[in-house]
Amino acid sequence: MKNRKVSKAVIRRLPRYYRELGLLKQKKIERISSGDLAERLGLNPSQVRQDLNCFGGFGQQGYGYQVSSLHKELASILGLTRTYRAIIAGAGNIGQALCKYEGFLELGFETLALFDIDKSLVGKLVCEKPVMHIDKMSDFILSNNVDIGIIAARRRAAQPIADIMVKSGIRAIWNFVPADITVPVPLENVHLSDSLLVLTYQLASANEQEQDKA
Amino acid sequence: MKNRKVSKAVIRRLPRYYRELGLLKQKKIERISSGDLAERLGLNPSQVRQDLNCFGGFGQQGYGYQVSSLHKELASILGLTRTYRAIIAGAGNIGQALCKYEGFLELGFETLALFDIDKSLVGKLVCEKPVMHIDKMSDFILSNNVDIGIIAARRRAAQPIADIMVKSGIRAIWNFVPADITVPVPLENVHLSDSLLVLTYQLASANEQEQDKA
Repeated sequence: MKNRKVSKAVIRRLPRYYRELGLLKQKKIERISSGDLAERLGLNPSQVRQDLNCFGGFGQQGYGYQVSSLHKELASILGLTRTYRAIIAGAGNIGQALCKYEGFLELGFETLALFDIDKSLVGKLVCEKPVMHIDKMSDFILSNNVDIGIIAARRRAAQPIADIMVKSGIRAIWNFVPADITVPVPLENVHLSDSLLVLTYQLASANEQEQDKA
Repeated sequence: MKNRKVSKAVIRRLPRYYRELGLLKQKKIERISSGDLAERLGLNPSQVRQDLNCFGGFGQQGYGYQVSSLHKELASILGLTRTYRAIIAGAGNIGQALCKYEGFLELGFETLALFDIDKSLVGKLVCEKPVMHIDKMSDFILSNNVDIGIIAARRRAAQPIADIMVKSGIRAIWNFVPADITVPVPLENVHLSDSLLVLTYQLASANEQEQDKA
């Protein structure tokens, strides 16, 4: 697995393979062909084979993939063989929902604390985690060996918060703010509004096509 | 703008252009070159020109783009010249956070109601909107001309809920459940766990590279 160059598109599909294999495992299905796996994911079989070949030849011709071992391999590739420590900057609606998100614990994530500037929130507990003043974030990261910083603050605060996180040694950032931030560590953006606009774009195009037909 | 074939990658960048132009407008900047716009978005200038050319020649050589008119054009392309009516299936943490999400109102979205099967939630108000039993969702969609169905329910319920939504005339679905659902209307997925796994993948790869160097 050394020095592999894997395209972003392939990496984005890995969690879907992992998720689907987890479901198959739950259903006690022991093996699956690339064709069946492809169909379940709306992909084509050769893409599935190519994707998984990026990480080594997991399948066997005429046999397909062994579900539980491929699931385990993907867990390792996705870095799920350990737990991660996270903090959330911004204890508003999104920050609180993330803190309570069940999917996190399942994946081995632990939120240690939330940070905010809002006096009505600081000092309180959200999902049993303390909300601390943002001024304490840097020290907290330094002394608690935090892996992932989640940003769910206001737009203007996103870049300054990211800068403090990076300076304090955070190893990756998960950004929920609709702003393009720049950091020298792995960054994943969840741009809710952008996603919604892709949907309204499709609605608007569909409308136009209907009008053209009429 | 008729019968245009625009790639998904271009469509995914449109909200970013729209967002950036909105910020420029706020700053009273009247025009911008493709080079400057590209730099702000981490793209290259020729890509910016190509992307925007898909929808018509908005720029002028030697002048660049007129910020406010391009912003307005993009609003129209993104379908933001009207308001949208949405409902949320699943009134748990994510559903509630979405209902309270300020970005929605800004974009012209109105959440009419939430739906759930949880007796402790049904009958309550969340962000001043009623939480109704999921059995009432179909009638509600039919009689309220709902555009967008947001799914924030449990995994197993996602496809059945999507089917009811489509049958009742919903025009687009925004899915927050980590499941691959199939619908004959525009669909946007926000897979939080998948996004997080892309981040852990990057962390795991970074670790490996460090180990290789050592």
